[in-house]
Amino acid sequence: MTNHIEKALTAKGIHLPTPAAPVASYVPAVEVNGMLHISGQVSMNDGELITGRLGDNMSLEEGQQAAKACALMIAAQIKKAAGSLDRVDRIVKLGVFVNSTADYTDHPKVANGCSDMMEVIFGAAGQHARSAVGVASLPLGVAVEVDAIIALKLE
Amino acid sequence: MTNHIEKALTAKGIHLPTPAAPVASYVPAVEVNGMLHISGQVSMNDGELITGRLGDNMSLEEGQQAAKACALMIAAQIKKAAGSLDRVDRIVKLGVFVNSTADYTDHPKVANGCSDMMEVIFGAAGQHARSAVGVASLPLGVAVEVDAIIALKLE
Amino acid sequence: MTNHIEKALTAKGIHLPTPAAPVASYVPAVEVNGMLHISGQVSMNDGELITGRLGDNMSLEEGQQAAKACALMIAAQIKKAAGSLDRVDRIVKLGVFVNSTADYTDHPKVANGCSDMMEVIFGAAGQHARSAVGVASLPLGVAVEVDAIIALKLE
Repeated sequence: MTNHIEKALTAKGIHLPTPAAPVASYVPAVEVNGMLHISGQVSMNDGELITGRLGDNMSLEEGQQAAKACALMIAAQIKKAAGSLDRVDRIVKLGVFVNSTADYTDHPKVANGCSDMMEVIFGAAGQHARSAVGVASLPLGVAVEVDAIIALKLE
Repeated sequence: MTNHIEKALTAKGIHLPTPAAPVASYVPAVEVNGMLHISGQVSMNDGELITGRLGDNMSLEEGQQAAKACALMIAAQIKKAAGSLDRVDRIVKLGVFVNSTADYTDHPKVANGCSDMMEVIFGAAGQHARSAVGVASLPLGVAVEVDAIIALKLE
Repeated sequence: MTNHIEKALTAKGIHLPTPAAPVASYVPAVEVNGMLHISGQVSMNDGELITGRLGDNMSLEEGQQAAKACALMIAAQIKKAAGSLDRVDRIVKLGVFVNSTADYTDHPKVANGCSDMMEVIFGAAGQHARSAVGVASLPLGVAVEVDAIIALKLE
């Protein structure tokens, strides 16, 4: 199995985190007919949750870092489920949930922290459809949660 | 058509509810190429809505019961759309929306009320990917809403 | 390529908007194996955002108009991505996010503004599965955001 993408990331100084175990009764990823559904990944870095609320106690830049951390965790789950990042044919859809106050409006800029990292990792195959919304609260108080649908290459 | 799963549920004392009619201009389920998309099912029990907000006027246990009720309603919709629960190849993805205050953090435990029931009903085929988020409000004031993607066996 | 549906809409006085460019690092639509995933489309009319919050500064009728605007924008994105509305085999799933206060309960009626327009445009092929939830805030303060999964006819 090839690992070209991961080697290229390492050359850029980008390292995938350890894929987090679900905090509950479900699995991190399910593949059906070459479509891989990734469970909502919460923002964490080096095993520490990134908590906070946009519009309250977190800057745009901190929100973008949280979203970027979700992208790396999604990549780590893809690698675990599919064996290699090189099996990705297309990042199809991201669902981005931003922990936000009622008057917050910059969700797209926050979500770009995740979207931009997808293109860094996967190039043109990383260009995805996306929704980004502001939610009242997130598991464990995290700032961002992102789920994903990925199309895999046939082996 | 076989009905092994439903008979096993009955033996456990678990009965499916009457599948709820949509409260609006849409349909409960759409199947395309063996993938069944189930509309968001709101928490109800014996035809009564389970209303409330986690972090405010509802305990974790009550939230879990609401989530469990959504699982049973999803199963009822699967049976109605596919003819039998035995046609389920895999519960692929659940989207769990929890009616929550801004400081609530136990969404995964609430959502487990739904996830655990999926494994009770479908066994290994019930192991799914999942997102769980806290939303500001839900239709009719219900506590939990869950939508689902199901892979069906070819007939 | 046929354009029967669009001609019928024009005859009804319904005109598709210019498909909006993403406000961030993603693409409006991704097609994989005949399934078209449309990014979350925010409520706008004639290039002006429709902003507001249900339960606060917006009536039900205004919310329904915002949701209808999302339906038209989704149709515009389908036309751009697939070439013609006639390629739609089925509107499979809509995810409707309503900018709402915590005590709002009429999300289904708001979302009907989108669902009803889908049936106006696509007829029986427009009957879809749906989730509708109330979120704390939305990008740029819009009232409604809707994403979609569409099954296309093979060419």
